Amino acid sequence: MAATSPPPTPALTAERILEATEEVLRRHGPAKATVVDVARALGVSHGSVYRHFRTKAALREAVTKRWLDRTSEQLSGIAAGDRDPEVRLREWLRALFDAKRRKAGADPELFATYMVLAGESGPAVTEHIADLTGQLTAIIADGAGAGVFTVPDPAAAARTVFQATGRFHDPGYAREWVRPEAEDDFGSLVELLVRGLSSP
Amino acid sequence: MAATSPPPTPALTAERILEATEEVLRRHGPAKATVVDVARALGVSHGSVYRHFRTKAALREAVTKRWLDRTSEQLSGIAAGDRDPEVRLREWLRALFDAKRRKAGADPELFATYMVLAGESGPAVTEHIADLTGQLTAIIADGAGAGVFTVPDPAAAARTVFQATGRFHDPGYAREWVRPEAEDDFGSLVELLVRGLSSP
Repeated sequence: MAATSPPPTPALTAERILEATEEVLRRHGPAKATVVDVARALGVSHGSVYRHFRTKAALREAVTKRWLDRTSEQLSGIAAGDRDPEVRLREWLRALFDAKRRKAGADPELFATYMVLAGESGPAVTEHIADLTGQLTAIIADGAGAGVFTVPDPAAAARTVFQATGRFHDPGYAREWVRPEAEDDFGSLVELLVRGLSSP
Repeated sequence: MAATSPPPTPALTAERILEATEEVLRRHGPAKATVVDVARALGVSHGSVYRHFRTKAALREAVTKRWLDRTSEQLSGIAAGDRDPEVRLREWLRALFDAKRRKAGADPELFATYMVLAGESGPAVTEHIADLTGQLTAIIADGAGAGVFTVPDPAAAARTVFQATGRFHDPGYAREWVRPEAEDDFGSLVELLVRGLSSP
């Protein structure tokens, strides 16, 4: 066997930079975190970071997108498939509420940080909402196809349902999510919306 | 006729103090407005103000309540009466959206000021929401009585409808209200909710 050598430095990928950026944001907060902090955490020059993300704004945008994508990816499994559309709709709305509430509760500081980032970032949030509304459209379209949902325009209905449930996924409402009545409120809202979508 | 004398100073009522407070808030912003400013604007001692409102917090609470009450009073006329409950529901939701949007648009600085005040004030906002939800309950109860709305619990349904329409009355969404798609979004949401309430 060869003599032991120091472990190879892993290649500096965009993913590694984003991981480090999240850690730096968690530690320093959104106001103070800099590209130099990220480079230092990775043991590389800040030039190396800039080769992957050309500006600090681009890096912040990418880390926000990564954070938001984690939720969309979790939900995409529920939206896909051919199970009963009404069941999928209920599960999907529930999973969205749960995912957001878990993110807010598990690491409030990081959540607050991402709220700041989401506020300054244009496309990442818009794309996230388009992503989620697209998944919802797929479910409602399946339901319309099966005659379960009586809506002429699934994309419009998805947009409406997404907006109607804002209280249970819009981060601005995070402090409402821990209130004891939130569960009942959420259940009643989903019931009313399903009734509206299914109304003859 | 008697010789002209200086016009009598109007009595220092709570209403006059609240009017002056709103003006002071408009001019100085919520962070800087003080009871001394209010007293100066009225030409009275700050002790006179304190005789009506025992603390600065009580004064801020009262002025917030007055601002919120203006909206509830406008809407109460729509909620009352015995016209078709579905028509009243649609008109009421529309009037709420219009009133909030008008307040936000007509005087953005005062609106921002009241958002700060609403954030620090407990009971005024809670009571305002209870007021509005009460009006909505009356409309939905009439509809349930007439067999137009098929809901077992009008108060619960009112709470759900109020929360579902948050995007169109919660001040946190004010910047969405001026977007061109807001009108269509609002219309689609009301349609879906009326369908849900009326579903057999």
